[in-house]
Amino acid sequence: MIPRPVTIAVAGGTGSGKTSISSAIVERVGSDHIAYIPHDAYYKDLPQIPVMDRNILNFDHPDALETPLMRDHIQQLQNWTSVDIPVYDFSKYVRTQHSQHVEPHPIILVEGILVLAEPTLRPLFDVKIFVDADADLRFIRRLKRDIGERGRTPESVISQYLATVRPMHLDFVEPSKRYADVIIPEGGHNLVAIEMVADRVRSLLKMHQMATSSSSDPGVYGD
Amino acid sequence: MIPRPVTIAVAGGTGSGKTSISSAIVERVGSDHIAYIPHDAYYKDLPQIPVMDRNILNFDHPDALETPLMRDHIQQLQNWTSVDIPVYDFSKYVRTQHSQHVEPHPIILVEGILVLAEPTLRPLFDVKIFVDADADLRFIRRLKRDIGERGRTPESVISQYLATVRPMHLDFVEPSKRYADVIIPEGGHNLVAIEMVADRVRSLLKMHQMATSSSSDPGVYGD
Repeated sequence: MIPRPVTIAVAGGTGSGKTSISSAIVERVGSDHIAYIPHDAYYKDLPQIPVMDRNILNFDHPDALETPLMRDHIQQLQNWTSVDIPVYDFSKYVRTQHSQHVEPHPIILVEGILVLAEPTLRPLFDVKIFVDADADLRFIRRLKRDIGERGRTPESVISQYLATVRPMHLDFVEPSKRYADVIIPEGGHNLVAIEMVADRVRSLLKMHQMATSSSSDPGVYGD
Repeated sequence: MIPRPVTIAVAGGTGSGKTSISSAIVERVGSDHIAYIPHDAYYKDLPQIPVMDRNILNFDHPDALETPLMRDHIQQLQNWTSVDIPVYDFSKYVRTQHSQHVEPHPIILVEGILVLAEPTLRPLFDVKIFVDADADLRFIRRLKRDIGERGRTPESVISQYLATVRPMHLDFVEPSKRYADVIIPEGGHNLVAIEMVADRVRSLLKMHQMATSSSSDPGVYGD
C-alpha cells in the first residue's frame, strides 16, 4: 500500500509572514514534491451582492470560506487523486471561471489564516505550524501591502482592519495558536525556524519515499 | 580550520517540559555527539547563609546563578576545549566539591529557565528554543514533582511559587520568549515538535561532520 501523503498546515494572522514561510519551504524542499493548497482560494463566490458593497464583507470570518470543499480536496490529495481548486479574483471579490489543477504529491502544504481554527480541518494535519508576530508589526505589513500592491488608501485599510480583521483575529486566529505543534515568531525573516521546518519536511519526504519504494505498488508517483 | 560547534539553547518556565525536550533531543541525536550544559549546575554557592534560611532564597532570579562561569565554559567548548562544570546539591542548596567533566562535541546543548533571558548568553546560541505551556499546567507539574521527588509539602511549594517562582517568571522568563527562534508548546508530549528539532540537530551535525572531514585538520574529535 502506498503511504498517505504527509499534510502540513501553516496558519497565522495577517502580516505574520506565513506566506513567506510556506514559500521558503516549497523553495527548499522542491515544488515537484509538494501539493500547495491555499485556503484563500476557497473564498465563497457571492455574485448576488452588488460590487459596491463587497468591500464591506467580512473576509476574516470562517463563513467567508468554502472550507468543506477544501476539506474534500485535501482528502482527495491524501488518497492520491488530483484536484481542481478554485481561483479567486481578489480585485473583484469573485471566484473566477478558472480552476487550478493540483497533482497529488508526498507532501501537502495547506496555508491560511484560519486553517488551525477549523475543527473539520485539524484532524487532517500531521504537522501544525502557527506563524506569529506582534499585532502592530502585522498591521504595518498589511498596510504597506494593501497600499503598495492593491492600490488601497490608508483610511480604507484602517477601517477594514478595525471593523473585521482585528476582531476576527482575536476571535478565531489567536485562539487557534493553541492547536499548533510549533510556533514560529517573525515568519519570513526567521531563517533558523525556516531551516528547521524545511529539514523536517525533507526528512518526512525521505521517509515517505523509502516507504513507497518498499511498498507493494511502487511508481504511483514518480519523482 | 575545524568549524565551531553548533550551540542550541532550550529555555522555558518551570514545568514547561524543557528537560523532556532536551532529553528527547539527546536520545534521538546521540549523547556521544552532544555536550550538555544545564544552567542550574551553576547555582551560586552561598555557604555563609544558615541552612535554615536557604529555602527562602530566590532561586529564580538571574543573580542566583554564576552565569559568567557558564558563559566561559560554553565558549571553551565552542573552541574545542573540555570543561569541568560544577555539581549542585539541590537537597542542601550548596555547590558540591565535585565537578563534572564535559568533553567538546559538535553540538552544545544549553538548558535552563533563564538562558534566553541573559543578554551575555544569547549571542552564543545558533538555535534558540523556548518551551511553552499554560501557567496552571506548569504549576501542577511543579507541585507533583516537588511533592513526589523532593519531599516537599503542598504549602511550601505554593508559598515558594507565589513568592519567587511566579514573579520571576513574569519578570524574566516570559519576556525572554521574544528571543526564541522557535516556540514549542507542551514540551515533553509534543512529538511532532521533538522530531522537528531532532531532525534539525541531526542535519546540523551532518553538515558539521562534512565540513570537518573536508577541513585541513580532521580528527580533532572522532565520532
